[in-house]
Amino acid sequence: MSKCITVGLIGYGTVGKGVVRILENNQKIVLRKVGKHIKIKSICDLNPIDRPELYVKNFKDIIKDPEIDLIVELIGGYEPARSIIIEALKAGKNVVSANKAVLAKYWDQIFTTAQDYKKSIYYEASVGGVIPVVQGLNEGLAAEEIFEIKGILNGTTNFILSKMTKEGLSYEDALKSAQEAGFAESNPAFDVDGIDTANKLAILASLAWGGWIKVKNIAVKGISDLNIKDVNLSKRIGNIKLIGSAIKTKNGIDLSVCPCLINKSNTFSTVENEYNAVLIKGKDSGDVLFYGKGAGQGPAASAVVSDIINLSKFIVTNTAGIVTDVIYDRKKKIKILPAGQSRSAYYLRFTVVDKPGVLSKISGILGNNKVSIASLSQPNKQGDYADVVIITHETSLSHLETALRQINALKSIVKSKPVKIKIENPS
Amino acid sequence: MSKCITVGLIGYGTVGKGVVRILENNQKIVLRKVGKHIKIKSICDLNPIDRPELYVKNFKDIIKDPEIDLIVELIGGYEPARSIIIEALKAGKNVVSANKAVLAKYWDQIFTTAQDYKKSIYYEASVGGVIPVVQGLNEGLAAEEIFEIKGILNGTTNFILSKMTKEGLSYEDALKSAQEAGFAESNPAFDVDGIDTANKLAILASLAWGGWIKVKNIAVKGISDLNIKDVNLSKRIGNIKLIGSAIKTKNGIDLSVCPCLINKSNTFSTVENEYNAVLIKGKDSGDVLFYGKGAGQGPAASAVVSDIINLSKFIVTNTAGIVTDVIYDRKKKIKILPAGQSRSAYYLRFTVVDKPGVLSKISGILGNNKVSIASLSQPNKQGDYADVVIITHETSLSHLETALRQINALKSIVKSKPVKIKIENPS
Repeated sequence: MSKCITVGLIGYGTVGKGVVRILENNQKIVLRKVGKHIKIKSICDLNPIDRPELYVKNFKDIIKDPEIDLIVELIGGYEPARSIIIEALKAGKNVVSANKAVLAKYWDQIFTTAQDYKKSIYYEASVGGVIPVVQGLNEGLAAEEIFEIKGILNGTTNFILSKMTKEGLSYEDALKSAQEAGFAESNPAFDVDGIDTANKLAILASLAWGGWIKVKNIAVKGISDLNIKDVNLSKRIGNIKLIGSAIKTKNGIDLSVCPCLINKSNTFSTVENEYNAVLIKGKDSGDVLFYGKGAGQGPAASAVVSDIINLSKFIVTNTAGIVTDVIYDRKKKIKILPAGQSRSAYYLRFTVVDKPGVLSKISGILGNNKVSIASLSQPNKQGDYADVVIITHETSLSHLETALRQINALKSIVKSKPVKIKIENPS
Repeated sequence: MSKCITVGLIGYGTVGKGVVRILENNQKIVLRKVGKHIKIKSICDLNPIDRPELYVKNFKDIIKDPEIDLIVELIGGYEPARSIIIEALKAGKNVVSANKAVLAKYWDQIFTTAQDYKKSIYYEASVGGVIPVVQGLNEGLAAEEIFEIKGILNGTTNFILSKMTKEGLSYEDALKSAQEAGFAESNPAFDVDGIDTANKLAILASLAWGGWIKVKNIAVKGISDLNIKDVNLSKRIGNIKLIGSAIKTKNGIDLSVCPCLINKSNTFSTVENEYNAVLIKGKDSGDVLFYGKGAGQGPAASAVVSDIINLSKFIVTNTAGIVTDVIYDRKKKIKILPAGQSRSAYYLRFTVVDKPGVLSKISGILGNNKVSIASLSQPNKQGDYADVVIITHETSLSHLETALRQINALKSIVKSKPVKIKIENPS
């Protein structure tokens, strides 16, 4: 075996540059942890780079290079990322990836290939930025039967929600502010529509329950239609955060991504700006929470380099992939709870004509559908209209949705579509 | 190699029983993660146990058993725990221990022996209960230059402080309540005097900086003389928690364990009862926080079993101890900051004679010693005496202590020894 671990890097954007910088600055730490130097031999990118001596135009040249032990995939997106990972594993390379989209979508193919070819793929940076939650779930809580995973998993949306809550900005202005701070893309759909959170939740849930939990099984709602009025009206109770949630119930795993109202005393409500947090509840462990930066060059690159170091420890003894890192059983069927059976308390807001009898009509419809009211208030009047805010007790989502459809049909008294926000208690 | 990983367990108290239960209940998970069954062959305890078929009276019989791959030390204290660990490593066994006292005190001997004999010792349960912080620091943040470690590391004291803060109990009553809830020993000195926190801090700091940081280098103050009056008077600012803190400064590592006043907006202030939390600040990672139960059978045993599983993955391929898990360089001298040079803001309380001129005398002495005042209030009067609460700006501890000695010497106007509580901002 060669004197050092030899790495090929594919994708030289912000994170890729950070990986090279951290590896070079921390050579002493790396040597002491791994027992060998880790050397980047080749870097592939669409465009020429500032390290011409390492530049490789075609990623296939990295995959077929017999000197390379480990390939780091940092290009994002589905293709050619999927092909790179699969071909690398088949060529006998170990892989590090930060690509949540490709992992969530091709979990089965990627981990089956890794098992078949007895190679490892590490992906700590794909979820929660710098937070070592993949490792925490897979190794730290190795002995646990997992009951729940809940997380603030997207730095962009959390930054936007922090701006709305703390500075009273509208969604549009908060998004602009996130774009200026470098925390949102010019096309933010992937983040604000909740897709990114759903990808990360699918990865954590698949890992926790040893099968493949698909994104299409997750009920996903983003933050783009969140009204600043509801952010303000719900402040008395807490803060609104975009939560990805996976709960084991006796009828299946309850999976959702949606804006949730978090009680002020709850740790999640103190998670601001680009920070992420993940709560894992195990049978014996109880609640374990991980918190750290979910975005930014340093945090993401740090997580990638930790994967490179930890995987290299196995490469040194030629044992990477011999013991599976991810328990994945492709035959395991994981039962998913239908979204309508999900149970929670909710914040509801109705904008209604301000006249006697309206309230009793609304509360009557809720009651007929078994939605029980915990509190009711009328905080605002605007001309002939008034806002009515109702906090429900725990109710089934399908009952609530039936009630809301019936209320929305009362066109003579209801001005706009009722607003519904889940009330969450992650710890 | 045998068909299963064979374990000898030494110490069959609450945690030991939990380990046996979790291993037996989770055999399927274990088999899938390790690729082999993990079997407990022998259990040693001072007294006969409820599993007579596994009982071994003398721990030496476990150490010399050639079938045993891994020894789990759960007896606590210094001896024979130290001998068991050292003899086990020398006999070619890998070791799992939850014993923070023996690790902190014999770090050098234990890790030198492990390196010399190329065996591994895992000790996740020694710090932070179920929280995977040893792994998080060693592997998750593998690439990081560590700047700071701060933690609520002792469940007993945190439980007592929660009771004082939330229920207004005196220290004595809160301790009693902790004893009744099973979170404090009948002799609670080890916990309430801060020694346990100091042991855990020494472990984390030694791990972070690759040398041996000794408990005697840590300035330790416990909670037993904390007055409920100060808990109440400081509530406006935040909550008092016992914090272990290790900060890299240009003049050395600043190490302390003491009750600290934590700002309400800070995540640490939401850590209640037996929960622990650890904040690690790295160069690229920024702040990473870990949170979970620091005490109790389930959480402690879960951490021990995760160590058994993770270590077994290496035993399966016969590579445990080949790549060092803990970077320890016995020749590395780590510079420690003298306690007096430590800098912080402080909460001070003086009980003084209620007459003109007293305040100017106190503030004059503080000013002469370069201690600058951020705010001053007189919340209480009791007969001829009044409490004066002063919040300082950041100041050096030695300057402050000189000032407090001078003020305490004013016997005609000062009724009791001034109270000083560090104000902490862990994130």
